Amino acid sequence: MSRTTSELSLKEACEYLLGRDQILILTHAQPDGDTIGSGYALALALKALHKQVAVRCADPIPHKFTFISLSLEPEEFEPQTIVAVDVADCKLLGSLCEEYKDVVDLCIDHHVSNVRYAKRLLLDANASATCEIIYGMLKIFETPLNRHILSALYTGIVTDTGCFKYSNTTAKTHRIAAELIDAGVDYAEINRVMFDTKSRERVKIEGAVMDNMDFYFGGRVAVIAITRKLLIQTGANDSDLDGINALSRTIEGVMVGVTLREKKDGKIKISLRTNAPIDATSICHRFGGGGHPRAAGCEFTCPIEEVTEQLLPVIRESLEENGCLI
Amino acid sequence: MSRTTSELSLKEACEYLLGRDQILILTHAQPDGDTIGSGYALALALKALHKQVAVRCADPIPHKFTFISLSLEPEEFEPQTIVAVDVADCKLLGSLCEEYKDVVDLCIDHHVSNVRYAKRLLLDANASATCEIIYGMLKIFETPLNRHILSALYTGIVTDTGCFKYSNTTAKTHRIAAELIDAGVDYAEINRVMFDTKSRERVKIEGAVMDNMDFYFGGRVAVIAITRKLLIQTGANDSDLDGINALSRTIEGVMVGVTLREKKDGKIKISLRTNAPIDATSICHRFGGGGHPRAAGCEFTCPIEEVTEQLLPVIRESLEENGCLI
Repeated sequence: MSRTTSELSLKEACEYLLGRDQILILTHAQPDGDTIGSGYALALALKALHKQVAVRCADPIPHKFTFISLSLEPEEFEPQTIVAVDVADCKLLGSLCEEYKDVVDLCIDHHVSNVRYAKRLLLDANASATCEIIYGMLKIFETPLNRHILSALYTGIVTDTGCFKYSNTTAKTHRIAAELIDAGVDYAEINRVMFDTKSRERVKIEGAVMDNMDFYFGGRVAVIAITRKLLIQTGANDSDLDGINALSRTIEGVMVGVTLREKKDGKIKISLRTNAPIDATSICHRFGGGGHPRAAGCEFTCPIEEVTEQLLPVIRESLEENGCLI
Repeated sequence: MSRTTSELSLKEACEYLLGRDQILILTHAQPDGDTIGSGYALALALKALHKQVAVRCADPIPHKFTFISLSLEPEEFEPQTIVAVDVADCKLLGSLCEEYKDVVDLCIDHHVSNVRYAKRLLLDANASATCEIIYGMLKIFETPLNRHILSALYTGIVTDTGCFKYSNTTAKTHRIAAELIDAGVDYAEINRVMFDTKSRERVKIEGAVMDNMDFYFGGRVAVIAITRKLLIQTGANDSDLDGINALSRTIEGVMVGVTLREKKDGKIKISLRTNAPIDATSICHRFGGGGHPRAAGCEFTCPIEEVTEQLLPVIRESLEENGCLI
């Protein structure tokens, strides 16, 4: 099916939403801070404009983000307008994909890889987070920034930028943060919950993972394997694994951090994090995956032991091409 | 000895330095990113004003900060002006204290606890880092912000704020960060080195520590023990332990994180990190120590096994007093 997606400017997207009602906002499955923050900040702003609005997500909202989702009273209505936030591909809607893949009226996103599945698209690939774009919309709406909206926006920005740490952070990101702080966001508490709070199970699995990390090519590649067995042993669940993909790349000398994760259905999900100049996307692309230059993913259906056999030669090639092998 | 410290405004401090030459800048001992960043950013700015300038520190500059200190060519001269940066008390000059304690002409600092040992003081307790104050001075000096100065200032700010995570971060901090990014600071690389680079030894000891953490009082207290044996097993050294004291407090439900560290001389160094309302200082004070409300320390001379026996009842008392026992 071919579709024509019309690209909207920030102002046009705002005008479109101002003319609509009964708005259902969709976040991506396995929701993170940015999709949740974007969804609820936008919903609360539209609510303040006296519209009927609801947010749906295929998966449960992780515990640490419920302070955001609880800010909106659930409401039953027949949606007239479907908006997707931070959803680069309709597949990322998870179990909601079938129902909504052809009927998204507006997608608001910051992923340059957006596949243009929606009827209308507001895309700003320079935004560190979709929440930055939503902040721009709220300025046009002249939405009063209450505590809930501030928390939602700040959470989205800090979770997508690693608290202003990563290269997607811009001067504009900092200027928005300054404005959110001026408006009274409780940033220190949000950051404590987002970055400095670990469950006991997380501590256990992080310890086990660090203890059992494998190194290849003179320490240029570090591999973490999160098996079902390890999850059962440590009692860790999905939300305990949040951010664990970033762990291996942080080790001195490591250019490519690989996290293998055995899923319930036996498939192996690969998450690749690289340091410049290694391109994570091109490696994952070889196995049917994709992503960002420094963070990409793909999936294997073979046993976990065979995954590294297939993956390592391709990583080696990339290290060699970039003169990164010692 | 009584001394009169005159408090200078930002402009007065700049005028003072503009009228001086042969300037020696002192950082505090066991230097961190802020004292080093402040010292070298100021030194490079004064150098650009054609002054003779040098920086001294009682202790070696940690490896991860040498990219800052190497930006200034060493120079021999007879100091006419002594400036201390980020040094709240002349004792913090370490082994340089004796030589300089009575002759500091200007102290530039952001610690509200500054003991006013210098002849002149530029204090801004609202600044997240002394580097914020230095940035203000450089604006008055109209210093061109080259790569070295940008790196020094940004490093000081991010290390003192936990990359904009902690409550000392202000809207102004973010606005300065935006200006440093506009000026071209390589922030992603600096943050990678400061926050996302761990040695393999660090990963090993962190894994072992997490695996072996003990919990008390329904998970309200977490205890980490870093024994000499563990250090030898993992090959970790002092710099690998940097920040490890903060680990236990980050676990959900933990109000008091205790790190026991066996020193070479057999003494046990205790580091206590608490969440509000538990007062770390009052607990450590009972054992002859002290510190800040949320981070304090003390020392024991008994065997490591006996330390918890002495410490836990006092912590329990504090938890009970504050209604934090479940």
